[in-house]
Amino acid sequence: MSKFLNARIAALTAYVPGEQPKDQKYIKLNTNESPFLPSPKARKMAKSELKKCMLYPDPDCKELLSAIAVNTDMGVENIIVTNGSDEVLNFAFMAYCDENSPALFPDITYGFYKVFADLNGVPKKEIPLKADFTIDLAEYEREEGVIFIANPNAPTGLALPVSAIEKLLQANPERVVVVDEAYVDFGGESCIPLVKKYDNLLVTQTFSKSRALAGGRLGFGVASKGIIEDLNRIKYSTNPYNVNRVTAAAGTGSMLDNGYFKKCCEKIIRTREWAKSQLRYLGFTMTDSKANFLFVKHDKIGGEELYLALKERGILVRHFSQERICDYNRITVGSRKEMEILVKTIGEIVCER
Amino acid sequence: MSKFLNARIAALTAYVPGEQPKDQKYIKLNTNESPFLPSPKARKMAKSELKKCMLYPDPDCKELLSAIAVNTDMGVENIIVTNGSDEVLNFAFMAYCDENSPALFPDITYGFYKVFADLNGVPKKEIPLKADFTIDLAEYEREEGVIFIANPNAPTGLALPVSAIEKLLQANPERVVVVDEAYVDFGGESCIPLVKKYDNLLVTQTFSKSRALAGGRLGFGVASKGIIEDLNRIKYSTNPYNVNRVTAAAGTGSMLDNGYFKKCCEKIIRTREWAKSQLRYLGFTMTDSKANFLFVKHDKIGGEELYLALKERGILVRHFSQERICDYNRITVGSRKEMEILVKTIGEIVCER
Repeated sequence: MSKFLNARIAALTAYVPGEQPKDQKYIKLNTNESPFLPSPKARKMAKSELKKCMLYPDPDCKELLSAIAVNTDMGVENIIVTNGSDEVLNFAFMAYCDENSPALFPDITYGFYKVFADLNGVPKKEIPLKADFTIDLAEYEREEGVIFIANPNAPTGLALPVSAIEKLLQANPERVVVVDEAYVDFGGESCIPLVKKYDNLLVTQTFSKSRALAGGRLGFGVASKGIIEDLNRIKYSTNPYNVNRVTAAAGTGSMLDNGYFKKCCEKIIRTREWAKSQLRYLGFTMTDSKANFLFVKHDKIGGEELYLALKERGILVRHFSQERICDYNRITVGSRKEMEILVKTIGEIVCER
Repeated sequence: MSKFLNARIAALTAYVPGEQPKDQKYIKLNTNESPFLPSPKARKMAKSELKKCMLYPDPDCKELLSAIAVNTDMGVENIIVTNGSDEVLNFAFMAYCDENSPALFPDITYGFYKVFADLNGVPKKEIPLKADFTIDLAEYEREEGVIFIANPNAPTGLALPVSAIEKLLQANPERVVVVDEAYVDFGGESCIPLVKKYDNLLVTQTFSKSRALAGGRLGFGVASKGIIEDLNRIKYSTNPYNVNRVTAAAGTGSMLDNGYFKKCCEKIIRTREWAKSQLRYLGFTMTDSKANFLFVKHDKIGGEELYLALKERGILVRHFSQERICDYNRITVGSRKEMEILVKTIGEIVCER
């Protein structure tokens, strides 16, 4: 840290992304990436853009917005695209939180919400999940502020029904509710249709998981025209060209290739359910994850112990040291073959205990 | 705007990027893009990355940092890469400005400095250029705060010698000086070597102009290890994966292809000097631009009038309505052929007056 840094930034604790060790080749089940290649159409459209990269991108990303609009049955005026969905989430913290309007989110959820609140110098309130890791939306109604809910939640994988979120929206028309649907395509229910009825709802999604474009950095938000105008005001005051040409083209290609997208999601869901049954057989307990990861623990082996034992054997999973969940590991659903190796390896580790 | 937006963001006036009209094909001399393709090596390396885009990028961008380190003769610990150089500039406003430390910059300069100050809610002071549009660094020493200087400046194209900036750094060791070198490769002198001597200097550069990668979105900052740590703290609290895989690879390829880079810069400089002489012959006065644009005016035709006349004839240039410079136009140096058409067209417009 330099002596010049101001106090607010000096006090920040940055987000720690999942490890990317380079010391050996791992089976990477720690950052919820897709085991599949990006759609062939996405790659083809991206490639054709490389020769145009001396020109700035279209800051409005009209072609990409149109493709998302078709797939979500919304208007282009209801959509903003960003450099990963982290960016649109940060914009929401910037736009709607302030000293009188704290950020509310679960104590166990995506770790970046806390960082965004601190980054923007706004108060936050972490609301404990229930003992079974479900979200009690009634708790949020008792507090003032902007509500951030990941649905399905991470790292639990548990999903709320749209009806529960609609009830929350109905009861709270004077504040913004952000629903982060990074994992919705693996079995959750999207709240996007509710945007037509509730002007206080912002739904965010990402191309990083179900669309196999984590390396491209692309996310989007869907909301009322007014909210999108707010977020665009921030975009045009931060980085009007936040989405580069190649990524915008890849995103458009992905949105135009729904067949490939659905096939990949179905495979991941099948593999997830298969892996769940295998791990249950080995004595694991787990949440009913609707995401592309499992959240599992075992009575005979601690969370960190299992994480380290797997790492030693060339498999990376994600362990969080937070007290309520330190017995668990979050394991990305990879390819069927990767999960077979995982199950076999975990079986061996458990048998040694 | 929604009713939910907080007061600070509601008060923002966003940056307005150069127009990108789609109604007809223009000769685009309004956003300082390169007339050349990105380096073949950049395109090749970018292409080979498309099949890996299901995986997150390396957040540290080690390979790209190494390539920049070699070209700048600095250590990787002295470099940060960002989603365009706008992002590293914004990080500098976040890190070093606050209510006691305003942002100082010229009244006529890159329009985003003002926007970044407002976005971050920090005070700003715009210091007038002298009548001949040069920067008087002595004026900055009289004020407290963080100094932002574009060198060469935009839209004037005028460059300060490194010796003048070194004097400023020597006299002001207790505050940060940011030198934005977006246009330095077209005839300016880089301050990067000074980073080894002054821990309060941050130099920013971009791949958008001289490296023909405006569509890729890539910029970087060079500074003391402490400053880079500060900026990385913000990066890891905002968007750890801010630079995507394809862009990082393109940037690496560009840095490894110095021959192509130098050839393109030399061509642009030659074309710039040729265009200057032609426009002088037509009665224009202009600054001694060291950038990839001209900054010109003519006694017989107003700045906006010329801009509109050129647009009508299919050529886009950039006109700013700010009072001190509204007689001028900023004209990007395109290919020799584009500039020949420009000169011919301007000649016709001037003759009609």
